Amino acid sequence: VTQRYPHQTIAGLAGALFRAAGAPPDEAAITADHLVTSSLMGCDSHGILRIPEYLSLVADGAIVPGAPVVIDHRSGSTALVDCGQNFGPVGATRAMDVAIAIAGESGVACVTTRRCNHVARLGAYAEQAAGRGLIAIATCNSPIGGHFVLPWGGKQGRLATNPIAYGVPTGGDPIVADFATSVVPEGKVRWYRNSGLPLPPGWIQDADGRPSTDPNAFYGPPRGGLLPLGGAVGYKGFALGLLVEILGSVLTGIASTDASTVGNGVCFVAIDPARFVPIDQFRSLMDDLSAYIKSSPPTDEAGEVLMPGEKEFRTKRARLEEGIPIDDATWEALRGHAARLAVDWGAFLPG
Amino acid sequence: VTQRYPHQTIAGLAGALFRAAGAPPDEAAITADHLVTSSLMGCDSHGILRIPEYLSLVADGAIVPGAPVVIDHRSGSTALVDCGQNFGPVGATRAMDVAIAIAGESGVACVTTRRCNHVARLGAYAEQAAGRGLIAIATCNSPIGGHFVLPWGGKQGRLATNPIAYGVPTGGDPIVADFATSVVPEGKVRWYRNSGLPLPPGWIQDADGRPSTDPNAFYGPPRGGLLPLGGAVGYKGFALGLLVEILGSVLTGIASTDASTVGNGVCFVAIDPARFVPIDQFRSLMDDLSAYIKSSPPTDEAGEVLMPGEKEFRTKRARLEEGIPIDDATWEALRGHAARLAVDWGAFLPG
Repeated sequence: VTQRYPHQTIAGLAGALFRAAGAPPDEAAITADHLVTSSLMGCDSHGILRIPEYLSLVADGAIVPGAPVVIDHRSGSTALVDCGQNFGPVGATRAMDVAIAIAGESGVACVTTRRCNHVARLGAYAEQAAGRGLIAIATCNSPIGGHFVLPWGGKQGRLATNPIAYGVPTGGDPIVADFATSVVPEGKVRWYRNSGLPLPPGWIQDADGRPSTDPNAFYGPPRGGLLPLGGAVGYKGFALGLLVEILGSVLTGIASTDASTVGNGVCFVAIDPARFVPIDQFRSLMDDLSAYIKSSPPTDEAGEVLMPGEKEFRTKRARLEEGIPIDDATWEALRGHAARLAVDWGAFLPG
Repeated sequence: VTQRYPHQTIAGLAGALFRAAGAPPDEAAITADHLVTSSLMGCDSHGILRIPEYLSLVADGAIVPGAPVVIDHRSGSTALVDCGQNFGPVGATRAMDVAIAIAGESGVACVTTRRCNHVARLGAYAEQAAGRGLIAIATCNSPIGGHFVLPWGGKQGRLATNPIAYGVPTGGDPIVADFATSVVPEGKVRWYRNSGLPLPPGWIQDADGRPSTDPNAFYGPPRGGLLPLGGAVGYKGFALGLLVEILGSVLTGIASTDASTVGNGVCFVAIDPARFVPIDQFRSLMDDLSAYIKSSPPTDEAGEVLMPGEKEFRTKRARLEEGIPIDDATWEALRGHAARLAVDWGAFLPG
């Protein structure tokens, strides 16, 4: 069962829960706003359902509320930010703040992270930079425990789903792309398994390297693997996932096979278009480009060509009005954490 | 009919032809070496067959040998390079030289181009930077006349095949990836049409937006379109192609619909890993990552998991020994240009 709740209610409750778990007010708000905004935009898998998960990780000591997020070192237009295992959205938001500041100074920045917990919606950080008039490319890897994605031509996973996001300012909503470099993330396979449905073809291989539509062939044991983006030209998706791995681990001096690594390895490249062309002209040319692309007649007569992020901004506008659907399991988990942390549930949800 | 020739022979002949067409010796050598190296690496579509094409473009005035390649403006860690319609490989090699120099100063660089002719093998520039110890990402768009690639959900092409390349230094051969953001480049569809064979599914749509395996359904008229990378999740390939378009046109102040634009819009981002981690450690971690990835058992028992670029470096080693296969049509075109330009064919090909 799923009910809708106003975003302010959930953000208020989440903020109180994170504060009760030990987060300073500003960091509780960053984390709450990030997760609620993900759900507002329809990215539910990286949204409100993560609130109880993060609270459990705090209880386990994996997330350290209030841990200092510091520039480990800065060299030229580059920086390495140590996120200290604070909430992922806190670490990554501050790392992008650093990238934005450097790009303001020199026109381009490259910032990587260490000890950054789960960053949730990677596109949010690209959007953060686009909101400041910058082009940003964001990548994010995960440690060996999540290496479910097959290298091209291989039978055993060697990469995580390693998403790539980018944001570009326009005259209106920014362009925001955000996608896994596998065909699908693991969570989608789980949904099909839980639903008892066969997978669409082209998502996974079984442990023997054969294409399969059986979700259990992915989970095993022995475990199969997620296929890289690209189908018959999956070497392209593999190459993209590999780049994300290099930027997230090797570039920060971490071995990809180090089982002690935690969280996401984030890399942000921010570019100031105003160094190349007046920003108003840039925004105007972006709007022209969007109009040109959207002028393509749609394949489906009832359809429409959408720019990356356009669907998500529409969902956001709708959910700001209609509220956010939240399933009962997530709701009960939130209620349990509120009881554990002595947060006054009734103050947020009277009646 | 195809014959093999030693790479030195072709490079010597190509250099003489480009000099005879008006190129200064160093620029003739850059262009000849670029195209011959592409063929050495098995990238024949961007190799020797382009020599007669470039010579015809010089004759037409589209390529201007010896045109100054200058930094139009430099701001912080960014630069815009005006390639003056010199040979594409000359303009792009010098633009990457600029990126390498800036990354040496500040750790990261973003360089775009204007009036850059066909750059041929984009991966070569990523490899150029990797040879200097840098990570480089290279993108390259093309003007509206080549907008054969469909936006996701659309019926009419709005992007070119917009390739992405990257290079990363290791302890041995660099990692070099280089691929179109469509499923396949247009040349592959042409090959199937010329061979009278149906296309594999998933490459094209006809003009009505229906999937097709008929190469003529792409060419029309009315023209169909090439599908973006990704099959059922082709919105990912579309997003990648769009980013390449933005970096190649909008970021340099050029409208994507401007029919007067010529050549490729190149964007190079170069990152110095030594700003983040000692370079020897970086190289060593890269070798560890390659070993880990290649340790995945292959899907095909007789196969092998290869890193991006590995196949191409193997082909290069083989063709350095065995010579480069050149088809008769290309050979006759070269001979025709030699006669036209009064280049002494016999000096390069005695007997």
